[in-house]
Amino acid sequence: MAKRNAFYAQSGGVTSVINASAAGVIEACRANKDNIGTLYAGQNGILGALHENLIDTSKETPTAVASLKHTPGGAFGSCRYKMRDHNEDSSEYERLVEVFKAHNIGYFFYNGGGDSADTCLKVSQIAERMNYPIQAIHIPKTIDNDLPHTDCSPGFGSVAKYVAVSTKEASLDIASMCASSTKIFILEVMGRHAGWIAASGGLAAEQAGDPPHIIIFPEIPFSRDQFIAKVDATVKDKGYCVVVASEGAKYADGALVSGSLHKDAFGHQQLGGVAQTLASMVKNSLGHKYHYALADYLQRSARHIASKTDVDQAYAVGRGAVEKALEGKRGIMVTIERGTGKKFSWSLGEAPLSKIANVEKKMPRAFITKDGFGITAKAREYFQPLIMGEDYPPYKNGVPQYANLKNILVEKKLKEGFEG
Amino acid sequence: MAKRNAFYAQSGGVTSVINASAAGVIEACRANKDNIGTLYAGQNGILGALHENLIDTSKETPTAVASLKHTPGGAFGSCRYKMRDHNEDSSEYERLVEVFKAHNIGYFFYNGGGDSADTCLKVSQIAERMNYPIQAIHIPKTIDNDLPHTDCSPGFGSVAKYVAVSTKEASLDIASMCASSTKIFILEVMGRHAGWIAASGGLAAEQAGDPPHIIIFPEIPFSRDQFIAKVDATVKDKGYCVVVASEGAKYADGALVSGSLHKDAFGHQQLGGVAQTLASMVKNSLGHKYHYALADYLQRSARHIASKTDVDQAYAVGRGAVEKALEGKRGIMVTIERGTGKKFSWSLGEAPLSKIANVEKKMPRAFITKDGFGITAKAREYFQPLIMGEDYPPYKNGVPQYANLKNILVEKKLKEGFEG
Repeated sequence: MAKRNAFYAQSGGVTSVINASAAGVIEACRANKDNIGTLYAGQNGILGALHENLIDTSKETPTAVASLKHTPGGAFGSCRYKMRDHNEDSSEYERLVEVFKAHNIGYFFYNGGGDSADTCLKVSQIAERMNYPIQAIHIPKTIDNDLPHTDCSPGFGSVAKYVAVSTKEASLDIASMCASSTKIFILEVMGRHAGWIAASGGLAAEQAGDPPHIIIFPEIPFSRDQFIAKVDATVKDKGYCVVVASEGAKYADGALVSGSLHKDAFGHQQLGGVAQTLASMVKNSLGHKYHYALADYLQRSARHIASKTDVDQAYAVGRGAVEKALEGKRGIMVTIERGTGKKFSWSLGEAPLSKIANVEKKMPRAFITKDGFGITAKAREYFQPLIMGEDYPPYKNGVPQYANLKNILVEKKLKEGFEG
Repeated sequence: MAKRNAFYAQSGGVTSVINASAAGVIEACRANKDNIGTLYAGQNGILGALHENLIDTSKETPTAVASLKHTPGGAFGSCRYKMRDHNEDSSEYERLVEVFKAHNIGYFFYNGGGDSADTCLKVSQIAERMNYPIQAIHIPKTIDNDLPHTDCSPGFGSVAKYVAVSTKEASLDIASMCASSTKIFILEVMGRHAGWIAASGGLAAEQAGDPPHIIIFPEIPFSRDQFIAKVDATVKDKGYCVVVASEGAKYADGALVSGSLHKDAFGHQQLGGVAQTLASMVKNSLGHKYHYALADYLQRSARHIASKTDVDQAYAVGRGAVEKALEGKRGIMVTIERGTGKKFSWSLGEAPLSKIANVEKKMPRAFITKDGFGITAKAREYFQPLIMGEDYPPYKNGVPQYANLKNILVEKKLKEGFEG
C-alpha cells in the first residue's frame, strides 16, 4: 500500500501544553517519512476537516515546530463544535471520510478530551463501515483531568502548578495585610464537574495549617453554614483565610453556587462566579474585608509556569500516537501509566476508545478530607509529581517568545464546501 | 554619639518585591555594623512601632535574609492604617518618637507609597520639634507607579511583566478558540487612579494589530458606544478581541464603570468589577461569548514571574536608604533616575519628602493613543525596560521556596501599650 498522509486536529478548550503534543506528532511523522506522507493539521480543529481547510505542516521549519513545545494555546486553532448524532444523521462523519479520501489520509490523530474521544471513536467506526481504512488515535488533553484509564491528562499538571503557585503567592500577600485590612482571599478556578484543579491549590501548603485553608469541590455538596463556620474559625485562629473554589461548586440539590445571587441591569441572570458569591456570603455573615481573583484563561494558558512533567507527557503522547499508529494500532487513546515504584515514573500505554468516550473521572472521595474542605495525604501523593519541574520558555523584551507558524492551507480537492 | 539602632517598616499594599527592599536595608545595616546597631522591623508596619511590637532582624540568618529577595508579600507584615491628622492630634506621632527613644532608634526607614511618604515626613518633622534626632528616609514601593520624582516605583515592573505575559498567553488561547466559541477576553487589572498597570498589557503586542486590542485607562473617560464600536470592529477584523481594563475605569462624570450594574441578593451594591460589567455590555450589544479574568492579588504577588529590573531596583533602594542615612541625609525619598543614553540604565537619586507626599503621578496623555484605547511608541519606550529580565525563585516540590523568618519580637520597654 502506498505511503499515506496523516491528519491532526486540536479540539475543545486549549491548554498551555497542547502544542507540545502537536510538536510530538509532527516530529514523529517527520522521523517516519518512509511510512507517513504529509501531516495535515485541521484549521480550527475538526472544522478544518469538515471544511477541507487543511494546514500543510511540512511548510513549517524544524525550529518553528520545536517552539510549539513552549507555546500555549492551539497553534492550528481549536473548536467547540458538537458533531451531529451519527445515529440520526451520519453525514458529517461521511464528509470527514470523504475529505480524508481526497487527501489520502490514513492516520487520524485527534487531540482532546472526553467528547473528542467519542468523535475519534465514531470516525474509526464509520470509516470502517464505509470501507475506508483509517487509523484513528486519540491524544489525551484536558485541564479537567477527567479522562479515564490514564494516570492524568496532559494540560492538567500545568494548571495544577499555576494554581498551587498562585495560591502560595497570594497567601503571602494576604498574610501580610490581614492585621489591619483584607482577611479573606478567594481564588476561583476551573473545573465544572470535577475538583481536580481546585484540589491542586492544596499543594501550596507545606505543613498542616498552611493556606489554602478551604477548598471548595464540585464533588462535595456546598453548605453555606459549614463554609461560614470554617472561615470564621480560620480567621480567629490564623488571622486570615485563603479559599480555593471550583467554578462548579454546587448545593446538595445540584444548583450552582455561582450565578445564584446576581442579575444584571437588564434582568439577565449573570454567572457572577463562585468567588464573588462566596465573598458576598462572608461579607454579609462575618463582615470581613475580602479580595478574590478569577484565574479564568490565565490558568490554562500560563505556559510561563508550566510543569516540566506535564510538558514532557504532552510531547510524549503526541509522539506515542504516531508510533502506535505505525505499530498498526487503531481505535485507541494513548494513556499515561504511573510506575508502581516509590520514586515517580511514568510510561505510555493505551486504552480502547470504547472505554474512554463519555466517561468522566471524578476525584476519589479518599482524596478529600472528611470535612470536605481539604485534600488528603493520598491526594498529595497523586498530585505532587504532576507539578514537578519548571520548563521556562525563552524571553525577548521581557515577554515569552512563542511560536509563529505559517499555517499554509493546501488546495481544496472537493468541489462542494461543507455546509455545517 | 553612641551607635544608634534603626527601624524599618512596610506599609500599604504589598508587592512581589517589597521584601527585596527589606533585604537591601538589612544587608546594608549589617555591612555597617560600626555605625548602626540593631535593625528592628515593625510588626505589621507602623502599627508595630505604635504598639512597640518590634521584630529583631538580627536573629535572622544571612540565608533567610537573602531569601527575602525572591519572596513576595510583606515578610514583617504590612498595614493599612491612617495616622491621625497631626495638626489636630499629634499623639500618635509623639508615641512613635517615644518608642524610638526607648529603643535608641536613630534611623527610620519607611517602605511604601504616597501616603506613607507623608507619614515619613511627619515623623521627621515632629521628631525635630520634640528635639529627638532621627533620620527619616522613605523607600519607594507601589505597584501603582504613581510616586513622583522617581522614574518608576519598585513593585510596578513586576506587575507590568505579569500583566504583559498573562495578556500574551491568554490572547493565544482565545485566538485559537474564537472560530467557534469565545470571541472576547477581558483582563481586569489594578490601578484605581492611574492606568500604568493597564498600559503595561500593551507590551504583550509585538506588532501593530497584535492583542491587546483595547486598553481601558482611568485617565480616559469611558464611552460605552466607542468601546462597543471598537470591539465590534476588532472582532470583524481579527475574529476576536482582547481587552485589558483598569479597575478604576470611569465615565466622564466620574462614576466608576465597575459596580454600576450589580446588586446582590441582599440589596447591597456589589463591586461587580470592570471586566464583568464590560463583558455584560458586549454580550448585550453584540451577543459574543466572552471570558474574563480578574487578576487581583495574583498580579502583585506573582514573584515567580517578577521583572529582574524591578527586583534589582527594589533591592537597591533598600540599600540606598541606609547608605544615604549614613551620609547624613534625612527627610528624603530614595529615587530611581533613568540614564539619558540610548541603552537603558538607572541609578539612585533622592528627592525631598515635601515634594513627594500626597502627589500622584498620572500617565502622561502622550502615552495613550489618540483614540484612548492603546499605548503609544513613547509609552513603550518608557515601559519596556521595566519588565526586562527574569529572576526565578528556587523551587521545591513543584512550588517556589519562599523565606520563612523567625520574626522574634524584642522585649517591650514602655509600660503602657498604645491604645490605637
